[in-house]
Amino acid sequence: MGEGRNLITDVAGIRVGNAHDERLASGVTVALFDAPTTASWVAVGGGPASRDTGCLEPDTVAEGVDAIVLSGGSGFGLDAAGGVQAWLREHERGFLVGSVRVPLVPQAICFDLLNGGDKDWGRYPPYRELGYAACEAVAEDFALGTAGGGYGATTVNLKGGLGSASAVTANGFTVGAMVVVNAIGSAVIDGGPHFWASAYEVGTEFGGLGLPAHVRPEMRPMHWKGGPQPATTIAMVATDAVLDKAMAKRLAMAAQTGLAKALRLSHALFDGDTVFAAATGRKPLVDRYNDIIDIGATAADCLARAIARGVYEATTLPFPESPPAWRDKFGRSD
Amino acid sequence: MGEGRNLITDVAGIRVGNAHDERLASGVTVALFDAPTTASWVAVGGGPASRDTGCLEPDTVAEGVDAIVLSGGSGFGLDAAGGVQAWLREHERGFLVGSVRVPLVPQAICFDLLNGGDKDWGRYPPYRELGYAACEAVAEDFALGTAGGGYGATTVNLKGGLGSASAVTANGFTVGAMVVVNAIGSAVIDGGPHFWASAYEVGTEFGGLGLPAHVRPEMRPMHWKGGPQPATTIAMVATDAVLDKAMAKRLAMAAQTGLAKALRLSHALFDGDTVFAAATGRKPLVDRYNDIIDIGATAADCLARAIARGVYEATTLPFPESPPAWRDKFGRSD
Repeated sequence: MGEGRNLITDVAGIRVGNAHDERLASGVTVALFDAPTTASWVAVGGGPASRDTGCLEPDTVAEGVDAIVLSGGSGFGLDAAGGVQAWLREHERGFLVGSVRVPLVPQAICFDLLNGGDKDWGRYPPYRELGYAACEAVAEDFALGTAGGGYGATTVNLKGGLGSASAVTANGFTVGAMVVVNAIGSAVIDGGPHFWASAYEVGTEFGGLGLPAHVRPEMRPMHWKGGPQPATTIAMVATDAVLDKAMAKRLAMAAQTGLAKALRLSHALFDGDTVFAAATGRKPLVDRYNDIIDIGATAADCLARAIARGVYEATTLPFPESPPAWRDKFGRSD
Repeated sequence: MGEGRNLITDVAGIRVGNAHDERLASGVTVALFDAPTTASWVAVGGGPASRDTGCLEPDTVAEGVDAIVLSGGSGFGLDAAGGVQAWLREHERGFLVGSVRVPLVPQAICFDLLNGGDKDWGRYPPYRELGYAACEAVAEDFALGTAGGGYGATTVNLKGGLGSASAVTANGFTVGAMVVVNAIGSAVIDGGPHFWASAYEVGTEFGGLGLPAHVRPEMRPMHWKGGPQPATTIAMVATDAVLDKAMAKRLAMAAQTGLAKALRLSHALFDGDTVFAAATGRKPLVDRYNDIIDIGATAADCLARAIARGVYEATTLPFPESPPAWRDKFGRSD
């Protein structure tokens, strides 16, 4: 296992909350920061949708954000951050402007509108209320698999879900990742049970099956969700290091290589793959350039592991459209 | 006057609706496209906040958006696009994904939380409902000044507001601009009555006072809304030309020079100046490169004129905090 809980909450200053609606078959995950936290992002897919991400660019004024939201619901799910803003406002959190506080809540969504859940929500979707409920649920422990923003997530061949993992770098920086695995492709080699991310596994965190001795050409078909059927793997990585916003963007950029390690395929025309990066600033860099490189690469590994864990921990949804969960197809090996 | 109504709705395929709440002293303006429309954007200020703008990047899949929203409310106002999405969903509009439609509604907001209005809205702000109401109100004619997204807008020395203007290029392309003038600086020279944009005025669309013979150094103080008091001029330009998304981004980039022409100052650390650009695709380019240059420069002029008109048309809010309207200070000259 990774450090501590093997969750992104091993990074000091972050709590995570999930909320979902079974009938809707979708949900929201919020990472709540104890204090305004340096953050940035990269959007690497061809179909991204996000909210309030302008403040993450290094040339903008905001020095910290209050929370980051990973949600289902496609474009409709962008309401979730509104619920998180409402919760933060009630708790007197947000960027102070004169006498008012404006909570800064960057969000990305994934497409889960065709997963069998009931999407007939009337005029307004329930994501705002789910965002609020996710804030009420924040803790250092949180569920993985069919949970929160990953509740309704799928991959091309197996149920997707919410994953997380953590590690500590050589110089002692804690790094964590959290991801909603709703990939356009596959997290497993040739339909499974081996994960593409197996080379990065810590302990038996996603079954410990290791790798096949040879990945023959027929074991790596180029297989993805077809037609105009969007998919999105949305993620967040974090460290307790002190980074400025420009280096947080660098962290996001390094971390997104975790998608490449763990998925075949990603960064495609019909996904909205997006990675946020946060630095909670508890621990100054020791060896500036090397620490930044190590934290970035460790975040990439954590993200790859988190993707495998999201699939490994998932349970099948009760709809004919839903792909099987890894554990239903291959059993739990731990 | 400009062409037709001298509004952005002179561009075929665009209707505009306003909604506001007097007590809140804020509102929403929506530009609704008759069909999915090619669009892009640039965010040029240091404090931007937006929603669903990922689909505007030229390297992403969406070929058209359904509406563009300019709203008050700062980060809380980002809920407005949710109301527009709800309205579009009820009208079976949106990007088709399998059997469901996801309306694409890029939005930018401006900061008007300290304008004297009552911002004690309880748990959730009213912007979602204002977005829905703005859709119900769409038409070819719409109010300028203290209206819609510009209802609560201010500049450093005069009431701001909603402005618009249009023109036709040498090769017959219609171009229009619409803007919520909530500038960190001033639209007028030395407190007024002359507008910085006067060199671009058409007829007497903002009073016809022209320019002072000399702008002496003491007439151009570097004066802006002080402290951490954000401001944002958010705008949209449009043309009936056929442009792809990359050239729509070029149009946004050319058009944002309109802010520079009309405001002293803009693009600052504490504003979120943002410009959307849309091409409704009614008329193929004739002389490709020159048409793109002409449309971009004409859009910049229209945006500069729209900024002046937004201030010229505004009326004062009934709060002690609100700066005077141009018409109250200098009278209407038309």
